[in-house]
Amino acid sequence: MAVLVVGSTAFDTIETPHGKRERCLGGSATYFSLAAKLFTTVKMVSVVGEDFPDEHRELFATHGVDTEGLETKPGKTFAWSGRYSADMNSRDTLDVALNTFGDFQPVLPESYQGTKFVFLANGAPGTQASVLDQIDASAFSVADTMDLWIDTARDELGAVLRRVDGLILNDEETKMLTGESNLIRAGRKVLEMGPKLVIIKKGEHGSFLFSNYFQYALPAYPTDQVVDPTGAGDSFAGGFMGFIAECDSLSLWNMKRAMAYGTICASLNVEGFGVDNLVAATRNQLERRYQELIQFVSL
Amino acid sequence: MAVLVVGSTAFDTIETPHGKRERCLGGSATYFSLAAKLFTTVKMVSVVGEDFPDEHRELFATHGVDTEGLETKPGKTFAWSGRYSADMNSRDTLDVALNTFGDFQPVLPESYQGTKFVFLANGAPGTQASVLDQIDASAFSVADTMDLWIDTARDELGAVLRRVDGLILNDEETKMLTGESNLIRAGRKVLEMGPKLVIIKKGEHGSFLFSNYFQYALPAYPTDQVVDPTGAGDSFAGGFMGFIAECDSLSLWNMKRAMAYGTICASLNVEGFGVDNLVAATRNQLERRYQELIQFVSL
Repeated sequence: MAVLVVGSTAFDTIETPHGKRERCLGGSATYFSLAAKLFTTVKMVSVVGEDFPDEHRELFATHGVDTEGLETKPGKTFAWSGRYSADMNSRDTLDVALNTFGDFQPVLPESYQGTKFVFLANGAPGTQASVLDQIDASAFSVADTMDLWIDTARDELGAVLRRVDGLILNDEETKMLTGESNLIRAGRKVLEMGPKLVIIKKGEHGSFLFSNYFQYALPAYPTDQVVDPTGAGDSFAGGFMGFIAECDSLSLWNMKRAMAYGTICASLNVEGFGVDNLVAATRNQLERRYQELIQFVSL
Repeated sequence: MAVLVVGSTAFDTIETPHGKRERCLGGSATYFSLAAKLFTTVKMVSVVGEDFPDEHRELFATHGVDTEGLETKPGKTFAWSGRYSADMNSRDTLDVALNTFGDFQPVLPESYQGTKFVFLANGAPGTQASVLDQIDASAFSVADTMDLWIDTARDELGAVLRRVDGLILNDEETKMLTGESNLIRAGRKVLEMGPKLVIIKKGEHGSFLFSNYFQYALPAYPTDQVVDPTGAGDSFAGGFMGFIAECDSLSLWNMKRAMAYGTICASLNVEGFGVDNLVAATRNQLERRYQELIQFVSL
């Protein structure tokens, strides 16, 4: 089965202790797609400006990412610039120009109708809701969010949470959303807000999965060289959703395996600049890391 | 097999968001012993003052903790007082009176000779070295340490690391000891300093085990109510070493299982004040949590 993603496409300028890259291909929909394409075909809904080069469109096409839903609008593409701290645990945003992404109103092409697996990357809850209006009621939908929306659009976010099947967010966002400092309690509290599935990403400390029926903890794949953390969360989501869509099964066992592929995609991604490693990744490489991860975490 | 521990015995005055306790039984050797006694007999080497009450000695005795090595010296018992932050991720030390622990010179009683499993709780590296001089060369020895010694006694600590079989320390201490912010690299760097086994404790994020032959990651037991974090690290060490000593085996499988019992002992401990929960714990309770942990972490 294919997976559909709605999110941003951007030009990222990234500075880490390992170097600097100017205007590389980025954005949540980009990272998600280039991870999910390792498992299944991806249908992307996003927006760019007239400065978006054909080579990026071709990159998507050659990797099985359908860009019929990638709208080109007059003006420029969303551009972001940031600098990571020495230990890469924090970053400063140096510049953001939303440009054409500023009033992004996603419209699903006819050909995307009926997609059973949908990821709403981080975005305004109102925009996420407009996507939920356009997909099948039976689709398995998972949303991401961020501190900004928890802070400024809590009611709208609450409405989205009552409609989606799953929520992926990081530990700080989970604490902020629930007011709970204990992540186990916090995870359960998010379940009460609506989603049947809650995934809490903890970066190098791994991830939790909460449902009303089980809880699961997975350490992160043991990456010993982080080059550029940009897109780690979206790569995780891409690996998770891509694997779920490939299996077309929501069994407990598949959920756990999908978490493993999520951390593996994130690990590959952060070991290189921008999307370099996702573009170069092979399924064999994933499977090798999957076996390593099993060794690393098996009791 | 029995396990031997050398460390502190103290009166702790603890304030957490859940309440305050005055002068309760504490210290690294105490927490370690009351966790390890769930698996095997414990031989304790520590020091107290004349104010140390008989009821505490009786508590140790009824729980299979041999206190022949618990020296009583003129003066008072080590006393510590601290207050935890609202999320309990940090604490302020309000008062420390080392008292009789100030010039602790551990002497192993004759009856402790030949103990095959030895834990050197956090203490001055010189003191730890004096214990290594007194134990069998074939004993399996594991040390703890802290930021103070990494900072002020790095050479002496380095000498201890070249002599012990294992080191248990937390994530911040590992970064400080190695100058590495990536814990995977940091863990490997500690191995180069001498120990064949390095365990990195990450609190709620679980723990890592490093050896030259394998790496292992275990999430923490999912505790949803932390009442008092005091002694978590020593309870972990007590569960780990207690289980290893009980099995009398250093196989990979036992090491992993010992990590699990370590996090389980730590989880029980932090869910109550002081040593309350360790004193009340039963082996059945441990086994129930062990099964829960397997469910929680199994891929």
